[in-house]
Amino acid sequence: MAHPDEFALIRAWTEGRQRADFLSSRGVVTGIGDDTAVVASPGGETEWLLTVDAMAEGVHFRPETMGDADVGYKAMASCISDIAAMGGRPLHALVTVCVPPSWTPARTQALYDGLYACADRHGVAIIGGDTTASRADLVISVTVTGQVRAGRAILRSGASPGQKVFLTGPIGLAAAGLYGLLHPEAPRPPDSLVRAHRRPEPHVRAGLLLSEQGFGRALNDISDGLACEAWEIAEASGVGMVLREEDLPVAGELAAYARRCGRSPLDWMLYGGEDYALVGTIDAADEDEAKRAFREAGLPFFLVGETVSGPPGVWLETATGKRVAVAKRGYDHFRGEDGEGG
Amino acid sequence: MAHPDEFALIRAWTEGRQRADFLSSRGVVTGIGDDTAVVASPGGETEWLLTVDAMAEGVHFRPETMGDADVGYKAMASCISDIAAMGGRPLHALVTVCVPPSWTPARTQALYDGLYACADRHGVAIIGGDTTASRADLVISVTVTGQVRAGRAILRSGASPGQKVFLTGPIGLAAAGLYGLLHPEAPRPPDSLVRAHRRPEPHVRAGLLLSEQGFGRALNDISDGLACEAWEIAEASGVGMVLREEDLPVAGELAAYARRCGRSPLDWMLYGGEDYALVGTIDAADEDEAKRAFREAGLPFFLVGETVSGPPGVWLETATGKRVAVAKRGYDHFRGEDGEGG
Repeated sequence: MAHPDEFALIRAWTEGRQRADFLSSRGVVTGIGDDTAVVASPGGETEWLLTVDAMAEGVHFRPETMGDADVGYKAMASCISDIAAMGGRPLHALVTVCVPPSWTPARTQALYDGLYACADRHGVAIIGGDTTASRADLVISVTVTGQVRAGRAILRSGASPGQKVFLTGPIGLAAAGLYGLLHPEAPRPPDSLVRAHRRPEPHVRAGLLLSEQGFGRALNDISDGLACEAWEIAEASGVGMVLREEDLPVAGELAAYARRCGRSPLDWMLYGGEDYALVGTIDAADEDEAKRAFREAGLPFFLVGETVSGPPGVWLETATGKRVAVAKRGYDHFRGEDGEGG
Repeated sequence: MAHPDEFALIRAWTEGRQRADFLSSRGVVTGIGDDTAVVASPGGETEWLLTVDAMAEGVHFRPETMGDADVGYKAMASCISDIAAMGGRPLHALVTVCVPPSWTPARTQALYDGLYACADRHGVAIIGGDTTASRADLVISVTVTGQVRAGRAILRSGASPGQKVFLTGPIGLAAAGLYGLLHPEAPRPPDSLVRAHRRPEPHVRAGLLLSEQGFGRALNDISDGLACEAWEIAEASGVGMVLREEDLPVAGELAAYARRCGRSPLDWMLYGGEDYALVGTIDAADEDEAKRAFREAGLPFFLVGETVSGPPGVWLETATGKRVAVAKRGYDHFRGEDGEGG
């Protein structure tokens, strides 16, 4: 059977199911709909961030492109990235692993090795979980908590016209790496692209800098591709977003690999996803200060466009000054597309 | 292949992987190993409880005995029960649902109806989740947060010799209901037993009373059967536990159904599980006060035994005064037993 759009379905199943005053009585500052939920903490100075992300065998990963430890690493990374996308500091994780009979204990051990490798790298304490059986496929679901100073969580809805759009790193690398792994006839991808696919790093320090120094107005991580994530900010904020093709950061190895494949890197950059760089907006007046702060922190920071008034949407301004509408598409599980970088 | 004991494996994958001083730097008061994790909150007056529980189609539930809404209800209930088993107040939930192509949107909608029905009943705000595809089976993983007054979380390890053992409700009903549903040749089970299997209620108010009034010394919810949960307390606390057969509360409908089936209710009560009553210990000196407090709150409270010094273990004292060792068994997914009421 054909499923309608995933997000519309999930909205129908969850939206408006609990009253605003009830949610507020439970300390809920931001519920379903952003990268993470935000809940008040009794002390009042910080807020808690909570997020969960799942990966299913055959849908989100395939053994042809990901080792078992990579699956664990990426499951943890994608959740930590949601915390980064709010400007928060990740703190704790709980892990559900449903293990089919075909997985040996050694494979599950490798999965845990990957989970811990990513958690350790980002200072996340694994404090609980549920390891249980499944009949057919491995399913892993990771919950991560984080903290942010009260009122400083950076939502998707914070953009307004006249702001600058930034990226915290080059994009498209994971998608290019996946392409190379899935197409044996294509040139062999360099290790850096394969690693981008298998061991993506969430941009936690960049997110923290944006919230702690107060620069971030809107923020999203690029789990589903720049096009999709930019659209989410545009729609949540009610703004248009113009990306300048010339200013989008193209990593050298991506450009070289795209050339060898006879492809343009732009498709991977717009629709690839799973790089976990952050996309967001800052006030135009903060441009110089934000650039300096990122430079001083030793973190990449690329200004790639502006927000404009008008109906929500995303446009690409080409080198010749032409504005091309960017399609609102990313990966949609329920359409049965490939789950990785698609 | 044969899997070793589930808990031993999970311990091997997780124990000692992160240093105590690192966990403590992340505010972790209690990590992996109890019903929930306990983490410090910046304010200091309360602590956060965090737990996750998963259910997989064909392993933890079967369409023959559970409607889709029941699956959602039970997934939420089992997680809330973990909060109750720490003496906490459940507050928030995040829900992962991996939906196979065979499930229609109407079925997933029913699953969410069950999730919300249980969340609403226990005052839990659903604040996030991940709904995604799976290839074969439905998998649902629920994360629940709760709060408890700092230092008041009731662990499994708090029992010491000479305490009284209590139950907060009759047990074995869910297992009897499941038995009736799985055995068409057996007498039809009464609705109350079927409901106990499909819509178990966590004992949140009892857990809160135990922590807020300071009675609870050790506490566990009976998700895996009284025998298994009593053993967990005995081992975590280093005590023996003697249960008096005559004092174990047998619900009238359970006794009647067991008679009609020509079975003893005791097996369901000791090894059944999924009733979500609480088992725990109080100081002997608190017996009268605790009884009064439960009576005033309108909550069941049964004193069923004592803790004794000596090697950890659980014994059943029969009507004739004989002590019989209670086997340490409950449901173990990795042995491929039936997941329900074990």
